[in-house]
Amino acid sequence: MSSEFGRVLRVSVFGQSHGRAIGVNIDGLPAGEPVDEEMLQAFLNRRKPGGSPLSTARKEADRPVFLSGLENGRTCGAPLCAIIENSDQHSADYQELFDLPRPAHADYTAWVKWGGQADMRGGGHFSGRLTAPLCIAGGIARQILARRGIFLGAHLSAVGTEEDRRFPLHPTAALFDEIAAKPFPVLDDAAGERMQALILEARQAGDSVGGIVECAVVGLPAGLGDPMFDGMENRLAAALFGIPAVKGVEFGAGFASARLRGSENNDLFAVEHGQIVTESNRSGGILGGITTGMPVTMRVAVKPTPSISRPQQTVRLSAMEPAELTIRGRHDPCIAHRAVPVVEAVAAAVVLDLLLEGHHGTF
Amino acid sequence: MSSEFGRVLRVSVFGQSHGRAIGVNIDGLPAGEPVDEEMLQAFLNRRKPGGSPLSTARKEADRPVFLSGLENGRTCGAPLCAIIENSDQHSADYQELFDLPRPAHADYTAWVKWGGQADMRGGGHFSGRLTAPLCIAGGIARQILARRGIFLGAHLSAVGTEEDRRFPLHPTAALFDEIAAKPFPVLDDAAGERMQALILEARQAGDSVGGIVECAVVGLPAGLGDPMFDGMENRLAAALFGIPAVKGVEFGAGFASARLRGSENNDLFAVEHGQIVTESNRSGGILGGITTGMPVTMRVAVKPTPSISRPQQTVRLSAMEPAELTIRGRHDPCIAHRAVPVVEAVAAAVVLDLLLEGHHGTF
Amino acid sequence: MSSEFGRVLRVSVFGQSHGRAIGVNIDGLPAGEPVDEEMLQAFLNRRKPGGSPLSTARKEADRPVFLSGLENGRTCGAPLCAIIENSDQHSADYQELFDLPRPAHADYTAWVKWGGQADMRGGGHFSGRLTAPLCIAGGIARQILARRGIFLGAHLSAVGTEEDRRFPLHPTAALFDEIAAKPFPVLDDAAGERMQALILEARQAGDSVGGIVECAVVGLPAGLGDPMFDGMENRLAAALFGIPAVKGVEFGAGFASARLRGSENNDLFAVEHGQIVTESNRSGGILGGITTGMPVTMRVAVKPTPSISRPQQTVRLSAMEPAELTIRGRHDPCIAHRAVPVVEAVAAAVVLDLLLEGHHGTF
Amino acid sequence: MSSEFGRVLRVSVFGQSHGRAIGVNIDGLPAGEPVDEEMLQAFLNRRKPGGSPLSTARKEADRPVFLSGLENGRTCGAPLCAIIENSDQHSADYQELFDLPRPAHADYTAWVKWGGQADMRGGGHFSGRLTAPLCIAGGIARQILARRGIFLGAHLSAVGTEEDRRFPLHPTAALFDEIAAKPFPVLDDAAGERMQALILEARQAGDSVGGIVECAVVGLPAGLGDPMFDGMENRLAAALFGIPAVKGVEFGAGFASARLRGSENNDLFAVEHGQIVTESNRSGGILGGITTGMPVTMRVAVKPTPSISRPQQTVRLSAMEPAELTIRGRHDPCIAHRAVPVVEAVAAAVVLDLLLEGHHGTF
Repeated sequence: MSSEFGRVLRVSVFGQSHGRAIGVNIDGLPAGEPVDEEMLQAFLNRRKPGGSPLSTARKEADRPVFLSGLENGRTCGAPLCAIIENSDQHSADYQELFDLPRPAHADYTAWVKWGGQADMRGGGHFSGRLTAPLCIAGGIARQILARRGIFLGAHLSAVGTEEDRRFPLHPTAALFDEIAAKPFPVLDDAAGERMQALILEARQAGDSVGGIVECAVVGLPAGLGDPMFDGMENRLAAALFGIPAVKGVEFGAGFASARLRGSENNDLFAVEHGQIVTESNRSGGILGGITTGMPVTMRVAVKPTPSISRPQQTVRLSAMEPAELTIRGRHDPCIAHRAVPVVEAVAAAVVLDLLLEGHHGTF
Repeated sequence: MSSEFGRVLRVSVFGQSHGRAIGVNIDGLPAGEPVDEEMLQAFLNRRKPGGSPLSTARKEADRPVFLSGLENGRTCGAPLCAIIENSDQHSADYQELFDLPRPAHADYTAWVKWGGQADMRGGGHFSGRLTAPLCIAGGIARQILARRGIFLGAHLSAVGTEEDRRFPLHPTAALFDEIAAKPFPVLDDAAGERMQALILEARQAGDSVGGIVECAVVGLPAGLGDPMFDGMENRLAAALFGIPAVKGVEFGAGFASARLRGSENNDLFAVEHGQIVTESNRSGGILGGITTGMPVTMRVAVKPTPSISRPQQTVRLSAMEPAELTIRGRHDPCIAHRAVPVVEAVAAAVVLDLLLEGHHGTF
Repeated sequence: MSSEFGRVLRVSVFGQSHGRAIGVNIDGLPAGEPVDEEMLQAFLNRRKPGGSPLSTARKEADRPVFLSGLENGRTCGAPLCAIIENSDQHSADYQELFDLPRPAHADYTAWVKWGGQADMRGGGHFSGRLTAPLCIAGGIARQILARRGIFLGAHLSAVGTEEDRRFPLHPTAALFDEIAAKPFPVLDDAAGERMQALILEARQAGDSVGGIVECAVVGLPAGLGDPMFDGMENRLAAALFGIPAVKGVEFGAGFASARLRGSENNDLFAVEHGQIVTESNRSGGILGGITTGMPVTMRVAVKPTPSISRPQQTVRLSAMEPAELTIRGRHDPCIAHRAVPVVEAVAAAVVLDLLLEGHHGTF
Repeated sequence: MSSEFGRVLRVSVFGQSHGRAIGVNIDGLPAGEPVDEEMLQAFLNRRKPGGSPLSTARKEADRPVFLSGLENGRTCGAPLCAIIENSDQHSADYQELFDLPRPAHADYTAWVKWGGQADMRGGGHFSGRLTAPLCIAGGIARQILARRGIFLGAHLSAVGTEEDRRFPLHPTAALFDEIAAKPFPVLDDAAGERMQALILEARQAGDSVGGIVECAVVGLPAGLGDPMFDGMENRLAAALFGIPAVKGVEFGAGFASARLRGSENNDLFAVEHGQIVTESNRSGGILGGITTGMPVTMRVAVKPTPSISRPQQTVRLSAMEPAELTIRGRHDPCIAHRAVPVVEAVAAAVVLDLLLEGHHGTF
């Protein structure tokens, strides 16, 4: 069940980069939910490579066609399947790669697994292109959540060594909208300028650079998630590692908490407006896998784009001999900024799944 | 299905800290596998709190009793259920906590979820004590893996700001044994000394400190794991976040890869002894969710023990009023070093689960 | 995940017939639910072999010990593990069977699967004894359901060629109680006499006889269950086939509906007391996998006890030669009447699982 | 996860009867498997309504379009998504049904579940039309199985009170082919004539009639399936009840075994050509949920088509008042014969899923 996640809300992604279509089948959506296609398209556009030098020149319309599950603009209880037809394919660019696995790509592992049967043109099913259907699922989930007062936002927390500031203790829907509307999704635009400079510099050097995405979910009730292996963290992490190039996931203070004392890391409880809150949120809104009612916050590490234009050493599989590989074609010098809506999408789908499951504590 | 993980090998943990017994039910173990109980006990002893001032004074024998699934020292195909009876309980210590949730513990979220019905004595089902049954499952999995030439080891990578060195590119079973035999599980004993000093210092200050565990798995075949949401990373992460106090998980270079260029982060392919290897292992032995055949490496962030002896602010739930809480009883000033075998245990169970599933690529 | 069923409510059965203990781990029970142990024991006693000549002479106290999940008589949110210790074991009876698989038992298939490593004394994990832990789970589920006005009952619908009458269109909780209190669980006691005579006759002939159990669930809301593969029928059937010796499952008119015309089989809708009902219930309260609000009815075929005292032909595995086998020991000449509470137990657990999942239609 | 089944091989069906397209996403297919599209089409054609008076006049081309997972005629490891575009829609026929639920259809339960949001034109997602994508999945699975010497076949075992003879003890692939090539899928053509007469008679009476499908799988290894809740029977039954109109499932002698003595029902073991076999197969090739190596046999009860042209009593939902309904449009007077390849398809997918999981007994 490799390309699927969720329990009540099951999101199944299909397609290869250069196949006929990519798409997503979403089983378990509640019925009667309006899907605003324009708003969905705006969300999808956030991950689209653009005319900007920060991204690949490959043009992708990413216009979803709904095959099922949507009638008169509303979900109808049946599984919702949506596809994006592939039009702009340059298969020739990838021809030589079949025998020369690209470093840090899945070419080699796919070859081991599928004995050379994999359709690896453009990364095949492992391509970042497959995050488009993920965004369809997440974009729909976001709309359903927003109607219940639950909002998600993300920003680029770091590119290489350049860092954005962190989300405030209580990020608002308005802040999320503001970031989403920016051409470069950061809180601090000056930091954003430095990040963009770094990306361009990498590009000019025929290289690439990694980054970190911070995501927050506000408006969640306390009590969501189950103990041990089925908590909010387990399920978010399991899904987030499904985004290509993600190599680390942390919640709240995450790895930084390892450097803290308990007295520094513990979030103290307080009463505010008749509600129990914590005065800080180093737990990322999750204790024992269960939401506290504070914002759920996570950070996701995205490795540098593996495709770089510099020559790299690899192995010619047919001969089992060392070989040099120069990757041609169009590539993103950084994918972290394009991963921002994808992280939101995955988080939205996971959160909606947990909400649909009910709290399950008492009955 | 909160307290369970795995697909073919299903590990279900049960028990509360101060209940009659804690235990684990393991469904899906292959039949005919010897379980060396002495070796298992030695593994369990690694997480046991001891007489050392680094740990709680609470004494736990942690001696498993096998109720099913084991006949004449071998697994018999039926689910293996093993329990540890609780003997050393000081429930009185926790009496006042019911109304005063301890900061950074699951007391509050359990109260929200279960409406005050939870048995939260000693942390209840959220207690670190529940890692003992996890170690039974992992300890058995380790033995099965070792017979197939697959070995796991872990060490304390950091405590607070003090860091151990990282595993070498190719850690060996002998190295894992060497660390396991040490009273304090580090590679660099001098760093270990500094870590221990830090822990004692925290203890004396009525405080606690966090840490990071690094774990490696060697001997795995290439091709293990499925794309997108069912890869080695997804499944390890989902399970590792089930260990109490874990707030971050990364593979290979993880968060550090976000700071690297592609040319620095990409592992170049080479041929060694007729096998394809990578010359570095920043991918942590995983590309596209699928193993490369290189060691699988991960790091796990453990937050500082939430229980500290300093007074802390909380809320009296019955009155919804601020209150001061002083946690009495015996607590670990650091749990990261005790988490070392637990991370190994969880990783062993996940890896065995994936192996039992088969490669599933071709048929 | 062989010995487990359920999605939110996960029931995992462990133990072998002649092992140290058999038991069940139930993950996902709502918290704060009282468990009346006396009522549970009464339920367990219904499947107990007794002093009657209708059953095996083997004495089983079947007294559950709760290891976790129950505090002060109430569920506490943590997994509930309960065991029954085995005391009355006659392993010697089974000694010769290891090499001579008993016809219609799982001895041979277990031997193929586990290469002779299985603990098959008394049927091992395949033993009807394992239905006792199932009854613990189901007995607890029944109590939770009853508090919500949902009641289950079952009776022996047939033994061999002797048939009881069918449940009325609207069976009541009182009727269920009445049957449960009978020494032989039928609606029509005259039919029950004939069934008992048939069982005794089979016993005297060194033979055994099969039967059919009919079960009904009343008080369920309409709208429970999901389309296609996750409906009430799919999930009940998947679990019911887990009861040893079950070879058929049907809902409503079941196989008989194949002989009917549409005009005879269709249940017509009507309004009664402001509620939509059907005037007959040949659908068994389920349309499209989803409950109609009418009683859910099912029938379960139980094959004759495979253990008979007549000599039977089998194969000596070590020699791959034909051999004659005479099964000694104590055996039920019929297990269908003992399966009555087991069918109720499994149905109760499945129904509670679906209820805990929520309706999932709209949100 | 309503419209999905399988563990390693996950089959997800989507679409509504009158939506844009219906389809199936299959995740977990082994890579490198050729898909013979002509053979697949021939299989799909077996469930197609035809020009015959036995079926609806609705014309469905049922020509699958492969969106992903298939490259150069072979599976490529990525999920295979195939769709059938809907062309021949007569939505007007169903207009009045929204407020008048058709007896024995899912109209009412869908209305309860989805609050009137369901797209129930032509039965929506509950339509028998959704068995076409199931046949795509099963048709591909069949081809993969056939290459391993595993063959499936089915025939119409009964229509109303008319019965075909049963499969012989060892049905062959040739026999399966022979039945598949017949216009009416029975073993005994004389019985087939009587069945067809019965169907025509029902049609002329504005009525419909039910039937039973018998299916067999040959060539399976012994040892497939896991104990208790994850055996061959549990998984076949769970999936088979996903076929619209199925109300009963039995294996081997099934319900008939309830009428037998143990001495009549037990299959005796014997050695044949150095292999252990049973001399009869009342167990349906399954003992303890695990295959014996004998043919796996099952029978599936299909209720009479709910849509009949006679006026029927129902309820006007908007008014909660009794109403009379006359269903117009084109309907099958019997669907059991069209269910024959569907049962094969579902069985093929389940069997392949179990095979892909591996035997899991020993490791």
